[in-house]
Amino acid sequence: MGALNLDAFFHPRGIAVLGASGDPTKLGYGLANNLMRSNYPGAVHFVNPKGGELLGCKVYTSVLEVPEPVDLAVILIPALYVPDALRQCGARGIRAAIVGSGGFREVGPAGERLEAEMLAVAREHGIRLIGPNCIGLLDTHLPMDTTFLPPPGPTPGEVAFISHSGAICAAVIDWARGQGYGLSRLVSLGNQSDLGETDVLAPVAADPFTRVVALYLEGVKDGRRFVQEARRVTAHKAVIALKVGRFEAGRRAVASHTGALAGQESAFNAAFRRAGVLRAETSEEMFDQARALAWCPLPRGSRVAVLTNAGGPGVTAADALEAHGLQLAGFTAKTRSALDAILPPAASLGNPVDMLASAAPEQFAASLRVVLSDPGVDSVMVVYPTPPMFTAGAVAKAIIPVIHAAEKPVVVAVMGERMIQEAVEHLRAAHVPEYRFPERAAAALAALVARVELQKFARDEAVRPVGEMPHLAAQPLGLLTAYGIPLATLKLARDAVEAVVLAEELGYPVALKIAAAEISHKSDVGGVLLNLNDGEAVRRGFEAVVQRVRQARPDADIEGVYVQRMIDEGQEVIVGAIQDPQFGPLVMFGSGGTEVEGLKDVAFALAPLTRSDAEYLLENTWAGRKLSGFRDLPPADRDAVLDVLFRLAQLAADHPEIAEIEINPLRVLPSGKGAVAVDVRLA
Amino acid sequence: MGALNLDAFFHPRGIAVLGASGDPTKLGYGLANNLMRSNYPGAVHFVNPKGGELLGCKVYTSVLEVPEPVDLAVILIPALYVPDALRQCGARGIRAAIVGSGGFREVGPAGERLEAEMLAVAREHGIRLIGPNCIGLLDTHLPMDTTFLPPPGPTPGEVAFISHSGAICAAVIDWARGQGYGLSRLVSLGNQSDLGETDVLAPVAADPFTRVVALYLEGVKDGRRFVQEARRVTAHKAVIALKVGRFEAGRRAVASHTGALAGQESAFNAAFRRAGVLRAETSEEMFDQARALAWCPLPRGSRVAVLTNAGGPGVTAADALEAHGLQLAGFTAKTRSALDAILPPAASLGNPVDMLASAAPEQFAASLRVVLSDPGVDSVMVVYPTPPMFTAGAVAKAIIPVIHAAEKPVVVAVMGERMIQEAVEHLRAAHVPEYRFPERAAAALAALVARVELQKFARDEAVRPVGEMPHLAAQPLGLLTAYGIPLATLKLARDAVEAVVLAEELGYPVALKIAAAEISHKSDVGGVLLNLNDGEAVRRGFEAVVQRVRQARPDADIEGVYVQRMIDEGQEVIVGAIQDPQFGPLVMFGSGGTEVEGLKDVAFALAPLTRSDAEYLLENTWAGRKLSGFRDLPPADRDAVLDVLFRLAQLAADHPEIAEIEINPLRVLPSGKGAVAVDVRLA
Repeated sequence: MGALNLDAFFHPRGIAVLGASGDPTKLGYGLANNLMRSNYPGAVHFVNPKGGELLGCKVYTSVLEVPEPVDLAVILIPALYVPDALRQCGARGIRAAIVGSGGFREVGPAGERLEAEMLAVAREHGIRLIGPNCIGLLDTHLPMDTTFLPPPGPTPGEVAFISHSGAICAAVIDWARGQGYGLSRLVSLGNQSDLGETDVLAPVAADPFTRVVALYLEGVKDGRRFVQEARRVTAHKAVIALKVGRFEAGRRAVASHTGALAGQESAFNAAFRRAGVLRAETSEEMFDQARALAWCPLPRGSRVAVLTNAGGPGVTAADALEAHGLQLAGFTAKTRSALDAILPPAASLGNPVDMLASAAPEQFAASLRVVLSDPGVDSVMVVYPTPPMFTAGAVAKAIIPVIHAAEKPVVVAVMGERMIQEAVEHLRAAHVPEYRFPERAAAALAALVARVELQKFARDEAVRPVGEMPHLAAQPLGLLTAYGIPLATLKLARDAVEAVVLAEELGYPVALKIAAAEISHKSDVGGVLLNLNDGEAVRRGFEAVVQRVRQARPDADIEGVYVQRMIDEGQEVIVGAIQDPQFGPLVMFGSGGTEVEGLKDVAFALAPLTRSDAEYLLENTWAGRKLSGFRDLPPADRDAVLDVLFRLAQLAADHPEIAEIEINPLRVLPSGKGAVAVDVRLA
Repeated sequence: MGALNLDAFFHPRGIAVLGASGDPTKLGYGLANNLMRSNYPGAVHFVNPKGGELLGCKVYTSVLEVPEPVDLAVILIPALYVPDALRQCGARGIRAAIVGSGGFREVGPAGERLEAEMLAVAREHGIRLIGPNCIGLLDTHLPMDTTFLPPPGPTPGEVAFISHSGAICAAVIDWARGQGYGLSRLVSLGNQSDLGETDVLAPVAADPFTRVVALYLEGVKDGRRFVQEARRVTAHKAVIALKVGRFEAGRRAVASHTGALAGQESAFNAAFRRAGVLRAETSEEMFDQARALAWCPLPRGSRVAVLTNAGGPGVTAADALEAHGLQLAGFTAKTRSALDAILPPAASLGNPVDMLASAAPEQFAASLRVVLSDPGVDSVMVVYPTPPMFTAGAVAKAIIPVIHAAEKPVVVAVMGERMIQEAVEHLRAAHVPEYRFPERAAAALAALVARVELQKFARDEAVRPVGEMPHLAAQPLGLLTAYGIPLATLKLARDAVEAVVLAEELGYPVALKIAAAEISHKSDVGGVLLNLNDGEAVRRGFEAVVQRVRQARPDADIEGVYVQRMIDEGQEVIVGAIQDPQFGPLVMFGSGGTEVEGLKDVAFALAPLTRSDAEYLLENTWAGRKLSGFRDLPPADRDAVLDVLFRLAQLAADHPEIAEIEINPLRVLPSGKGAVAVDVRLA
């Protein structure tokens, strides 16, 4: 498809407003008024069949009459008339339209048909659409405001916002004003009949005023394209997303542990990580963090200095930092002696630095300068309630120049509400991220560190393992072999006598496993026997296994019983892959066995795998961490596990027709000895 | 000690202010001024060696001159003079003092000596102390304000606050004003030379205006007394605590998995649960939830209805509710048809109820009335951005009477900031908990549900298992037997020949385990061999085990090797107990084996155990949940596990001299067959 040119939306030379109204109770009046008030520098053309005049401008009775220049139509008329209006826009040569009108898919089948008709008209005329059922689009720097929301709109700023919900847009504009940050662009996507979140992401981020893109997502349309586009954007700008609709029911039936454990959210987390997109847990967190991402330089590491004038706030800050995975920086002797020269003897010169309640604004500033210059400090949190003898505002004024001169991020937690308003205003005007609570300031610093770490994931390319990679689905076992994944020898016995012969060949002890394509959890139906030590045990075992499975699953077509040499050395892990409906192939790694779903010691990544993602899987599971050895457990062949992961990921990527494939257990032998797939399940 | 009478602090008939000052830059002026402005109804006596007059009152040159009535001294003079001042207070018959002065323990060894002297004087004269180094105490209903904080103080309300940090008190007063809730009482405890958090808890909660007690804790002095006192309070009032200092280093060396896994926080969590105290994760959360606890009736269950005028906010609310463990209520047919009669056809009548952007204030009110009357709804969240055609304030005014008439809790998320101020003011005045974000409203509802669930824990009494309970420490094995905990037979062999004889007696397969008191993790040093099937294997095994342990631990005094019949039926769990420095005996339950610390599937409770706590341990671990059966794993003897838990807890409670005791594994046999301790470790 190539990079989408949405200039007609973001830099229109003229805008036609279809449905502009002179009636102040109508949304069409609000829209016309906002566009005029926004100081949009292009041409504005109002269209309404009634004609007349509005806000000092002529109202055209049809879009066909609108003179040049006009690149964009904003349509806010009853849904039924929208297809015809689009036809006229097409005839007029307009190739971009924002349809604000509701009454489409969201109201039921009739609306759905109307939306399909509208889209067909747009396609026919080569018109790209935002909406319908959306708030519109605004840009505070161009400037331009095509929304119909009651004024005031947002102040100009560095955070762009793209949203699947119009109501959230309205709230965000108001939050932003109240919380003292500006917006650069805002796009409400509505029903996404044509353009969706992935289409507008890069064009929105291309704006030079935008430093951070915040996304409110209820899903994504094309998962892989989203990842691809987002990776391009996150290479130079921060993207932070709030993904809602986490707990929706209606998952498909699954046959494997991997399938059971892979909620929709595992795929989203894997995709956001690969794309370098930060994931916020709450709306508030998204904007708290967006402000820090917009205003702060990125830190080199995760070592934080806390500067405070009281003990309690210092402890609270230290707790919050550690809860977010950050570290309290250790200070050099030079730092400690410099602080000693600034502060009274009872002050605490460790980290957190407690300057005591008596600390004057100049002491805040001087101490901040000192900790910022410590090479072991990557970022700083200043946290203070109003000092008893000074105003919170005086402290803010004193530290702002130090913060501006620093190349390290500094966030400020000014504790209180009414008494600290002056401080808040100074900090906001100076673009210093400020919070009321140290816990939120800590989350903001953590987002800066996460941004740095995510860049590593987003830059890494997928590993293509060497070896034969057939593009033909085969038997699970054949397929694994073809992809170079080592398998424990497994032989099919049709009867008990053959089983004994095969067991003698393979060597004892052996395992017996029912051979029946329909049965994916063999042990659940008594289809597995382990540790058989002689021919008699194998003979009796064969009969027992077949009988139990017949009883449990009379429908199953039993081919016989597999005989396998027992492998009980090494560590046991699970490696699986599924096809996610939104993001395609997804790989899982973790603690195997039959209790996978209970222990939930698993992690997911997109397939094919990058090296960073493969390492992530190992570092974020106990199964992965203990591969390096634990107590009497010797180190296992970690590289062999990585190799199997790359290969299975490639297999899943090459074979979208395989819904689920799972190796459980994969036995990981001691270092240098490799790993062996003992059992494989495929669906 | 009996219930503490702190009436002199909370209901003094007269107060002497030592250090009252006429200099407005001094804290002693702030204190005098606050006390006068607070409209304290008792007698106020200012004391300052300079004498004179202050705020229209005579200033006495000594506390000895102060006339009746005087029950409480508030002391804000240089630290050095405090002991003498206390002597004079004692001579004057004053038995309660708040020492605001700093310069004691917090400034180093000299201050520490001074604090000890001050405490000795207080003890000698029978004076109880709050402080030193504290902000003071206030009561908005009495009213009385003995703090020196710059005005304004808090407005009267229902939330009491007890704090280990004075700085946090100052911030809380300001937050409370800004966030529109009042305080009833506030106590700043300072250095807690005499009275601590546990002492003031019940007296503070005894105030009829107080509905919730919020605690900022940096630790507790006497863990068990805290639990005992808090249980009494939480029986009738909600208590919510923010415990900081979570990540402090400096744990003692530990010998068992239980010790390694039991951070200080496990003990605090167990203690808060037993005490019925809610634990907040952040300062903000504590007060968000305190407001809901103060103003809402308690729900009967966790089924929530969401009422909104837009899709996005509804989805966000639903996500947040489920993330907090609450459920979206299902509606009756009657509810749906009643909503259908109120709302337009395109509205969504499921839960969340989306009334659409057009919803008028009366529709909000009528729909709220309908969902509140549904028997399947336990509580309601109303979430709305400003409707396009109405003000947020009009909606607030319409729903307030419905909320007041309801016997179920209703919280409101009004999304936005500036445009919704009128709504916020109405809701605050009406004592309806309101939040800017649905996620925070969800957390508040979750706190109400948690309060109900915690009452169950706080009402439950410890179980005293039947059987012989000796109060003498013995060998670990003898001790377990004495407490009625079943042990797998274990016999000591001094040499290889004896080992073979014992193995033949016990029956194969057997396990060999090194017998050496110094070695607590036998398998780490090669001291364990499992599944030996014949005499030859036992003979060779004996030699191998001894040799490996000699090599790994040349210091160990090897008594021989234990021979044990292999038990590999049943499920493997770990049961342990440690003595926590703050809360005494603590029991752990979870997934056993050698990888306990990696999997971290464990939970803790105070010993001796209540039935609710024992059930909690099982319900909150995978090891406990799977006792009821999982896939091909048959149900195990859950009751036997509960019995072992009660017995081990009793053992730990009876024997504080046992620092750590751990059964790993405890083999849990199929239902009705009991559980057997296979290995025991004691330190």
